[in-house]
Amino acid sequence: MRKRIFHILEPSNKKDLSHYFDLFIMAMICLSVVDIILESEATLRAKYGNWFQYFEVCSVVTFSIEYGLRVWTCIEKKKYASPFSGRIKYMTHPMALVDLIAILPFYLPFVGIDLRFLRILRLFRIFRVLKMARYSSAFNLIRSVFKEKKEELLVTSVFIVIILIIISTLMYYLEREAQPDHFSSISKSLWWGIVTLTTVGYGDVYPITALGKALGGIITLLSIGLIALPSGILASGYTEQIIRRKESKRKNDKKENL
Amino acid sequence: MRKRIFHILEPSNKKDLSHYFDLFIMAMICLSVVDIILESEATLRAKYGNWFQYFEVCSVVTFSIEYGLRVWTCIEKKKYASPFSGRIKYMTHPMALVDLIAILPFYLPFVGIDLRFLRILRLFRIFRVLKMARYSSAFNLIRSVFKEKKEELLVTSVFIVIILIIISTLMYYLEREAQPDHFSSISKSLWWGIVTLTTVGYGDVYPITALGKALGGIITLLSIGLIALPSGILASGYTEQIIRRKESKRKNDKKENL
Amino acid sequence: MRKRIFHILEPSNKKDLSHYFDLFIMAMICLSVVDIILESEATLRAKYGNWFQYFEVCSVVTFSIEYGLRVWTCIEKKKYASPFSGRIKYMTHPMALVDLIAILPFYLPFVGIDLRFLRILRLFRIFRVLKMARYSSAFNLIRSVFKEKKEELLVTSVFIVIILIIISTLMYYLEREAQPDHFSSISKSLWWGIVTLTTVGYGDVYPITALGKALGGIITLLSIGLIALPSGILASGYTEQIIRRKESKRKNDKKENL
Amino acid sequence: MRKRIFHILEPSNKKDLSHYFDLFIMAMICLSVVDIILESEATLRAKYGNWFQYFEVCSVVTFSIEYGLRVWTCIEKKKYASPFSGRIKYMTHPMALVDLIAILPFYLPFVGIDLRFLRILRLFRIFRVLKMARYSSAFNLIRSVFKEKKEELLVTSVFIVIILIIISTLMYYLEREAQPDHFSSISKSLWWGIVTLTTVGYGDVYPITALGKALGGIITLLSIGLIALPSGILASGYTEQIIRRKESKRKNDKKENL
Repeated sequence: MRKRIFHILEPSNKKDLSHYFDLFIMAMICLSVVDIILESEATLRAKYGNWFQYFEVCSVVTFSIEYGLRVWTCIEKKKYASPFSGRIKYMTHPMALVDLIAILPFYLPFVGIDLRFLRILRLFRIFRVLKMARYSSAFNLIRSVFKEKKEELLVTSVFIVIILIIISTLMYYLEREAQPDHFSSISKSLWWGIVTLTTVGYGDVYPITALGKALGGIITLLSIGLIALPSGILASGYTEQIIRRKESKRKNDKKENL
Repeated sequence: MRKRIFHILEPSNKKDLSHYFDLFIMAMICLSVVDIILESEATLRAKYGNWFQYFEVCSVVTFSIEYGLRVWTCIEKKKYASPFSGRIKYMTHPMALVDLIAILPFYLPFVGIDLRFLRILRLFRIFRVLKMARYSSAFNLIRSVFKEKKEELLVTSVFIVIILIIISTLMYYLEREAQPDHFSSISKSLWWGIVTLTTVGYGDVYPITALGKALGGIITLLSIGLIALPSGILASGYTEQIIRRKESKRKNDKKENL
Repeated sequence: MRKRIFHILEPSNKKDLSHYFDLFIMAMICLSVVDIILESEATLRAKYGNWFQYFEVCSVVTFSIEYGLRVWTCIEKKKYASPFSGRIKYMTHPMALVDLIAILPFYLPFVGIDLRFLRILRLFRIFRVLKMARYSSAFNLIRSVFKEKKEELLVTSVFIVIILIIISTLMYYLEREAQPDHFSSISKSLWWGIVTLTTVGYGDVYPITALGKALGGIITLLSIGLIALPSGILASGYTEQIIRRKESKRKNDKKENL
Repeated sequence: MRKRIFHILEPSNKKDLSHYFDLFIMAMICLSVVDIILESEATLRAKYGNWFQYFEVCSVVTFSIEYGLRVWTCIEKKKYASPFSGRIKYMTHPMALVDLIAILPFYLPFVGIDLRFLRILRLFRIFRVLKMARYSSAFNLIRSVFKEKKEELLVTSVFIVIILIIISTLMYYLEREAQPDHFSSISKSLWWGIVTLTTVGYGDVYPITALGKALGGIITLLSIGLIALPSGILASGYTEQIIRRKESKRKNDKKENL
């Protein structure tokens, strides 16, 4: 019995009960997210407020039952084999924690702060379903690129953050007298730095002094190169992974020929 | 007779009648689009309104005759060989439907809503002409890259959309009290999210609270990596395709040598 | 005599007279551009207006003499060997025309329109000097990438322009009633389309209706992929060129070994 | 004694005293930067101003002692072996100069100008620590890509700067009458050019005349290709480096097999 439920809860590629269960859960997640988004609309809340509540109850009950079943059946997996410590281990797994956090706000209305925004974390579930089954190959490729290029990306990130802090500090000293509102502190100047380096450029903060514009202009031109860095790293990472896969495939083919 | 018209209607690489017919249709499309763009200018419409109308009639008549001929001659193609069901099949083909939709608004002035914006869909035709002939190789390369990287691009898109919904919901809870106008609902907050993640940054909506700016800043920095993802996937896709073409060419060369 | 002057005018890698002449011309170009930029500053023009004029006369005289000498000596080159028709051929070469246009405004003050902005075209000269000598290899690599990927880039450009016109037309029909100032015609709507697709996002025009925002948001998200296209094409183009160069080098090495 | 201190000051991979010293210095740098950022906040300065001062004294003393020890022990390195001229050589090394500049403002309060912004240069230290040890491989890869692609990047940069000056000059002549505030000189127009070419688009300056918008629109569309250039160069540079490393590894493997 527990084994059967466990297999139903696990994602599956075949068109069996487990597959339809996956589809049902995905539909519940999507509807629940639509529910959260629409409920935030004041006019809709005034009209259909109750219906949003009803559906929220339904979805939380579904997710709670599912969560309970998962905790109950997780010991079917070797990793979590032990009845008690295995279940604790499962429950403290980041992904299971996110699941719990996404249904908890419903049961904790008495807590002072409004925790309802945590409900949106249910979305992470979609990602997990996607991770399995048909898209697992694409998913793994992207993950292995990030994993292998971790150090290059980290060095690049540190470089970007250092440049960001330095130019924001310089801009703070250059602009604070001309614009005491927008550059009153380095942390405010950092906001300008981020908005500029990422080329978002809202336009709420920008240098107005001649020196500030000169520095800002040079920084912005160089930021083209900065933004090209992660793009180049990832592109070469993909090419590398694909070449590696082909080579290992070719080796396998050779072995089979022998 | 039908066969000859069919061959004239089909794009061709040689400098024959079919080729000049292609050029004529492309010119009509371009002029028709220029007509639509210029007609929207109030001052020009006041002065030359009639001429725009006359040309619109000309172009619609041309496209209607062409559409009729295409439907009549399509049965020359094996796919649509059957006189009746083959023609229905041709007419329900997405590209033929777009053709129909692009001329229909002219014949349906009595419909309540203004459907004239559909006329702009004629532009898709240019694309189809381009698809053939000289640019077909470049066109096919780009298409096969998208086709092969479909799953990676889809996983990336789902990832971007999930991140987008989560940060927009968080921003809604952080900013709705400080800016009830711009963050009155999650769907409005989504507008901020899209404008920021894509680094467009119009500047109509941006966080103003300290927490909102902190979250927004971190998100924006990470968005560099997000935008680098599709770029990297496509770049590696091109490299892969080109390597593959070279290898298959080399194999062919080897075979010929043997 | 003419031969010697010809060789001095041609760029050179050795540290001879020709090299120092190149440096002198490059310095004149840079100073002349600085002169144009500074002269546009009202306060500086008021103070040092005469000096700017003097230097402009100097630089135009220099460039005129150089242009004259080039036309006189060009027949040393095989291409332009014929005394008369060769010189005409040289003078109608685009690069020589740009040279002429960059000095002509000085001699044509009596023309009605202000043509002084053409002086800035002198800058193109720097590019030509760069093309030679030390940077020629990097220059040729970039040029050959663009040359080889010409068709892919053209197909992508046509695709971007078609998408641009279609979304601008749709946005015109969606927003013209809500914002008659900014979306009064399709050509004005095109301005919004360009600013959004390229992710510049000045913030002077953006959709305000719910439908307009929905369409604009989706378009903007997809524009990530559009902008990734040329980046990917160029990246793979570089990789391809570099692999090709290595292979041809390897073949040469093999031949030498045999 | 001097030798031991030298080895402690040098970064190390083992978990010895030298490693903990590295961690200590990195912590001091980070805290010192946080100190600078928080001190700029007026409310915090009013409350905890003294504590910020105390910590600044502590950190400067630490960095001064470290700097002194480095200068004292640098002669242990072969490069700086000579007791006097070697130390001068070490002290005039750019990195050591940055170290000195970052602590000097503390000792020079009597100088007229406020040099405290130079303190932020301490951040460069983090970079240097990162350069060593665990991340050195990723660091070297990025550096060698930039080194090898130096000429392509330079040609691209010159190209971008030339285009930038030309379009800014054109825009100055097109817009100066319509917007005398924003386009009163070419240097002001350059600010528009940079903000547009890099797709930042603050929205403080943009063309308003029809001709200006037309030119601006075309420039902005072409800027997609411009920004794609460095991205493509760097991506191919990475791929090249990785292929080269693999080939040299394969050669080594072959030699070992022989």
